[in-house]
Amino acid sequence: MRIFGEIKGISPGDLFDNREALAKAKVHLPLVAGISGGKHEGADSIVLSGGYEDDEDFGNIIIYTGAGGQKNGKQIFDQELDSVNLALAKSKIENLPVRVTRGHKHKHDLSPKKGYQYAGLFKVEDYWYETGKSGFKIWRFRLVAQEIFTSETVIGEPNGVYDAPGRKPSTGDRIVRNYQKAKNVKSWHNYQCQVCGLAIETSAGLYAEAAHIKPLGKPHNGPDIESNILCLCPNHHVMFDNGGFAIKDSLELIGIKGRLRVVKKHCIDIDFIRYHREHYLKNA
Amino acid sequence: MRIFGEIKGISPGDLFDNREALAKAKVHLPLVAGISGGKHEGADSIVLSGGYEDDEDFGNIIIYTGAGGQKNGKQIFDQELDSVNLALAKSKIENLPVRVTRGHKHKHDLSPKKGYQYAGLFKVEDYWYETGKSGFKIWRFRLVAQEIFTSETVIGEPNGVYDAPGRKPSTGDRIVRNYQKAKNVKSWHNYQCQVCGLAIETSAGLYAEAAHIKPLGKPHNGPDIESNILCLCPNHHVMFDNGGFAIKDSLELIGIKGRLRVVKKHCIDIDFIRYHREHYLKNA
Repeated sequence: MRIFGEIKGISPGDLFDNREALAKAKVHLPLVAGISGGKHEGADSIVLSGGYEDDEDFGNIIIYTGAGGQKNGKQIFDQELDSVNLALAKSKIENLPVRVTRGHKHKHDLSPKKGYQYAGLFKVEDYWYETGKSGFKIWRFRLVAQEIFTSETVIGEPNGVYDAPGRKPSTGDRIVRNYQKAKNVKSWHNYQCQVCGLAIETSAGLYAEAAHIKPLGKPHNGPDIESNILCLCPNHHVMFDNGGFAIKDSLELIGIKGRLRVVKKHCIDIDFIRYHREHYLKNA
Repeated sequence: MRIFGEIKGISPGDLFDNREALAKAKVHLPLVAGISGGKHEGADSIVLSGGYEDDEDFGNIIIYTGAGGQKNGKQIFDQELDSVNLALAKSKIENLPVRVTRGHKHKHDLSPKKGYQYAGLFKVEDYWYETGKSGFKIWRFRLVAQEIFTSETVIGEPNGVYDAPGRKPSTGDRIVRNYQKAKNVKSWHNYQCQVCGLAIETSAGLYAEAAHIKPLGKPHNGPDIESNILCLCPNHHVMFDNGGFAIKDSLELIGIKGRLRVVKKHCIDIDFIRYHREHYLKNA
């Protein structure tokens, strides 16, 4: 059975001589493949070993390239969202932790000088495709470092954790959103989803979500402005962020029926719509 | 205009002689009320001043009691989800930051010996009602400390944040969920929402959410087991967590039409259904 989460007795920072040692410790079972996972279960582990020219490693944010279409570190044909790539996407929608290990061939300050070093648990927060350095389609995965937890169940919180006032952010990779701009867009649409027209009713009033069209954060760096925000119900927000549908320049929807609902006040930038369509819709 | 988030020039740990000084600094404008907010805009600030017998303060988690029905620190009639209480609930569904200040009369290690001390930004993560110590209905709000950010827009992430391997969790108040149990429940229902039957389609396959019936974490401390989990679409998950509907012992829905869909494998504990109904449904 595939183990998701920490392996008992293994801590971030632990070193391994080679892939065999890494497999024996159950951190990463495949001896060659960079991604360990099944397309139905999700991916449990990846190794960064310098094999992919498009990988980007910011320490606690990693932009990881999917598998396939590759020879001697060069992309020679298109990658598909299948097999272990689909496993990594599945880890996103199932919110599963992924173990990350850096190898000595992965050029980075955080890589070990020899062998392999386990870095800890990450979550897949985004997946999309783009044209890589070689001109072929690659799938990419944004992995973000998590706080440390074990694979055993921990219910509730540890008791009595007191922080001194003035404590600093732990990772600094939090994306801060402008709630006023989000609220403007939601108000303009009366909290009705721009796809289905539904406004979610709660005991605190109507609820809607502000969905960024071109995502915030690395590597997309979409802006946090009204023309890059849609007002969506949670269901259509999940679909929009995970390739369930996209939007044509004409505002007709692709993948599902209908047309994006618009209001005069809310100007939507077609460049962002296009960016989303060209990076998230699987069979565009 | 109400300011949400940090006030320029004010840092967590800053001390104020009295409520007038706190108001002058724009941290908390009302001179007497514990909650600053409007029911349409949300709440921007609260003060803990020892006036409510049901308040619980765990440092970075605060279980705060709503306003109203109270005299000389005793509850003398039921509270309503209206006015500033509704403002705090609105801050939850709008995901707004709330400034928290502790006063010297609030008995706590983190309270100042005199005057008032600004503690930083919190988010309202949950709101519900219960019968307080005096036998009257009170509304309660779970506030969780946030990383520090400013009220100005910060787009994307700071560059080059590198953490050493082996770093420790920053706050320790993360609730770790058992993804296997969540996945079991979702699989038993084929990812179809137990309310509407919808399974959300994404490019990584079907998507559903595991909704805890009796919530995890303080003060509910619901267990992370299959009989306390529902398989819901994101829309019905938001409604379920925010008083949009509840479930009768017969599994008929209250607040919306229909009946909870069940499958043989998935045993749901009626005690949890009852707990949810008796704490979240506004007009139960």
